[in-house]
Amino acid sequence: MSNCVLCKDELKPEEGQLIWRGDDCRIILVNDPDLPGFCRVIWNRHVAEMTDLTYGEREHLMNLVFVMEDAIRLVMHPDKVNIAALGNMVPHIHWHIIPRFKDDAFYPGSAWSPRIQKVPELVLSIRQKAAQELPKAILEQISRLY
Amino acid sequence: MSNCVLCKDELKPEEGQLIWRGDDCRIILVNDPDLPGFCRVIWNRHVAEMTDLTYGEREHLMNLVFVMEDAIRLVMHPDKVNIAALGNMVPHIHWHIIPRFKDDAFYPGSAWSPRIQKVPELVLSIRQKAAQELPKAILEQISRLY
Repeated sequence: MSNCVLCKDELKPEEGQLIWRGDDCRIILVNDPDLPGFCRVIWNRHVAEMTDLTYGEREHLMNLVFVMEDAIRLVMHPDKVNIAALGNMVPHIHWHIIPRFKDDAFYPGSAWSPRIQKVPELVLSIRQKAAQELPKAILEQISRLY
Repeated sequence: MSNCVLCKDELKPEEGQLIWRGDDCRIILVNDPDLPGFCRVIWNRHVAEMTDLTYGEREHLMNLVFVMEDAIRLVMHPDKVNIAALGNMVPHIHWHIIPRFKDDAFYPGSAWSPRIQKVPELVLSIRQKAAQELPKAILEQISRLY
């Protein structure tokens, strides 16, 4: 769709880094200063809801979501992983996979809840460094899938 | 776990209505005055993350999530469906499946974002009435699954 930012498929360097691109979807390491390691998998074609996909497409996408969760746990050691497909702003299927820490800006709220605490810069920079290992970890997991 | 509210498995009538119970999970119609039709599927056993489940368990749970999305679309005709597994407050696997409307209290924010608008009572009561059809629609879909 011409007015959909996810159909445009242009990733500005300040928004994040492309980790992997397949025929059906692409995986992004999101540049979120509050939540290092935040990843996103985006369905390439413009589809709004998971139940608009075929069973096979759905399974493929969820396999990728769980591969990303696995890699995030391995690399980031979060207190919890959050997984969400909302799409209210951009109704084009994309899943957020977010490592959450008890001392992060929004915990125990959602990543869309009001900010309730300030994370020390040192802690953030350690997590940002760990997040740089995510592309490799995700690619390794995907190579085992297919 | 003794201190986990989802392990206790006690649903107060004011919290919601049990729609279905299987060996592995149970489905609830949540009583959320702002978001009629809000449903939840809860894994019965205490497990924190999706990648702690076996592949088969994961597939079973996601099948139920998408059955619920399907029923919600059929019955509620939402503008968007939101799906999320967060668990920061209660780290025991549960998925929220939420019909969203452009005029609901939080739209286009998440269901955990600050409230930004007031929904007319008449609109809410029409949606609450529609939500009463959800248990039947979900049970019908599940009966086709297994």
